[in-house]
Amino acid sequence: MLSDLFSPSVQHWLDIAGIFVFAISGALLGVRKNFDVFGMAVLAEVTALGGGLFRDLVIGAVPPAAFTDLGYFLTPLLATLIVFFLHPEVERITTAVGVFDAAGLGLFCVTGTVKAYSHGLGLTQSATLGLATAVGGGVLRDVLAHEVPSLLRWDRDLYAVPAMVGAAIAAVMIRFHALHGPTNAVPVLTAFSLRLLAMRFNLRAPRAWHRRSRAVEEV
Amino acid sequence: MLSDLFSPSVQHWLDIAGIFVFAISGALLGVRKNFDVFGMAVLAEVTALGGGLFRDLVIGAVPPAAFTDLGYFLTPLLATLIVFFLHPEVERITTAVGVFDAAGLGLFCVTGTVKAYSHGLGLTQSATLGLATAVGGGVLRDVLAHEVPSLLRWDRDLYAVPAMVGAAIAAVMIRFHALHGPTNAVPVLTAFSLRLLAMRFNLRAPRAWHRRSRAVEEV
Amino acid sequence: MLSDLFSPSVQHWLDIAGIFVFAISGALLGVRKNFDVFGMAVLAEVTALGGGLFRDLVIGAVPPAAFTDLGYFLTPLLATLIVFFLHPEVERITTAVGVFDAAGLGLFCVTGTVKAYSHGLGLTQSATLGLATAVGGGVLRDVLAHEVPSLLRWDRDLYAVPAMVGAAIAAVMIRFHALHGPTNAVPVLTAFSLRLLAMRFNLRAPRAWHRRSRAVEEV
Repeated sequence: MLSDLFSPSVQHWLDIAGIFVFAISGALLGVRKNFDVFGMAVLAEVTALGGGLFRDLVIGAVPPAAFTDLGYFLTPLLATLIVFFLHPEVERITTAVGVFDAAGLGLFCVTGTVKAYSHGLGLTQSATLGLATAVGGGVLRDVLAHEVPSLLRWDRDLYAVPAMVGAAIAAVMIRFHALHGPTNAVPVLTAFSLRLLAMRFNLRAPRAWHRRSRAVEEV
Repeated sequence: MLSDLFSPSVQHWLDIAGIFVFAISGALLGVRKNFDVFGMAVLAEVTALGGGLFRDLVIGAVPPAAFTDLGYFLTPLLATLIVFFLHPEVERITTAVGVFDAAGLGLFCVTGTVKAYSHGLGLTQSATLGLATAVGGGVLRDVLAHEVPSLLRWDRDLYAVPAMVGAAIAAVMIRFHALHGPTNAVPVLTAFSLRLLAMRFNLRAPRAWHRRSRAVEEV
Repeated sequence: MLSDLFSPSVQHWLDIAGIFVFAISGALLGVRKNFDVFGMAVLAEVTALGGGLFRDLVIGAVPPAAFTDLGYFLTPLLATLIVFFLHPEVERITTAVGVFDAAGLGLFCVTGTVKAYSHGLGLTQSATLGLATAVGGGVLRDVLAHEVPSLLRWDRDLYAVPAMVGAAIAAVMIRFHALHGPTNAVPVLTAFSLRLLAMRFNLRAPRAWHRRSRAVEEV
């Protein structure tokens, strides 16, 4: 079935894993911003579940999955606890966290696209909501933590583009009835690999035309 | 009936009172931020109604109460007018405002929990939405006013915890069919008292483990 | 029909034009904030479609128009492309952009009011949602770009008031069954003209009472 990329139980555990790594990034930002443990938990929940919450409100799937699956809700609290006690250790494995985050990005852009399409949206809009599912939580995290959203900044490695490519591939495969069973891995792995490449080679998107030549002074 | 903590008319006036004190805190922040009178009104509306609006969108209760009950909408405008003309006087009774705000917090965390449960959510999720109802407006107020959300900061007296405890007690009482008539006052008064204690004794939540020892330098 | 101010095709092109000019303002802020091209596109989409998205979520019109009409979605991307390559030229015609933005403001406050009313909301609430439709996108744009919302600041020319007046006139005309065919232009043009006057004569709203005398020092 379209809305299950993999078998339901595998899908569920992949979702939980994605939620967990997104929550880690939220809780870590809470530590850096000197928030208390409840602030860390709020950022963890928002980072992990915010993108899917937005998608579900837009497609009218209420109550959203974030409020019906208890595992989705409790996972960010577990991530908060781990970061609370072990944050220096978690910071030290920041590359590993980045790799898992890339996996979450790849997974969520595809599941978001598929869920939106299965609720009757067009292919372009489904891919857009897939992108929003993958990156929305991070934007909400930054807004709540009073930071410029990392997604919008030119001096960060590509983050939206891998999710956009993954969502677009998923939409095209849906269009040609090619997204089922093992082929689901194609868009997920494409987005995952692109994000890893962006991290490895510091790939960035251009700013508006005439700005580029002044980039050095502005940094 | 579950969704009426007290008799309908008493409930309605308590809601209006809670909305009024939340709106006062929004309008006062507007004065401090040097916003104009319309900015004050926007912050007053958002602080007073934002939490309930989020809850209603999540449970699918559209149009939300904020847009169906004219009294809910007009009360923040009244609060704005009062703060516009009398803000030095209102600032002077800031402790009294804090006590009323604590009462609003106690009331909204319980009514939010009950309303979410009566729309079919689980007990944990209902308590979470009760918490969001009580604190969501304040977070939106701070985000719109371009401040670090007071809720997340470690150097503020406990605010989420009293609402969390009140919502949790309400959920447990719902579970054991013990929330009806006068017993409704139990979670409301518990949250209210906890918030007053937090204000009186400057109770705070811990930050991540290794940070505590450096707390003095960081302030 | 109430929800069509003008003939459907004229209405649609007016909507697209309003979305386009709002998107220009979003993309330009992205250039000023030194965001990359994807950050510019996010701000353009959010500015152009955010107000209507909020309105549609509140009235339960899901999926919102922003996710059903492909033209609504693609127009901000076109605006982003233009700003990306031509932003110095676009900045130079900033007055013209302001005039088009005023036209968008006038149009959206009325279409928002009419759409909310046709979904069963009261007249006051419909006018409020009309206001939110017109100004909501700009507030979201400023929050995402990590700026104090221009709407709330006292040192900006009146922006909410023209939209508020336009929405209120539309609501009163609906009440007396006077909003149909050519009379639709009355509230649109009133809001448009008021905004132009505010820009021309730097009209501003007052801040809280005792602040006014200190205005000079505070600037």
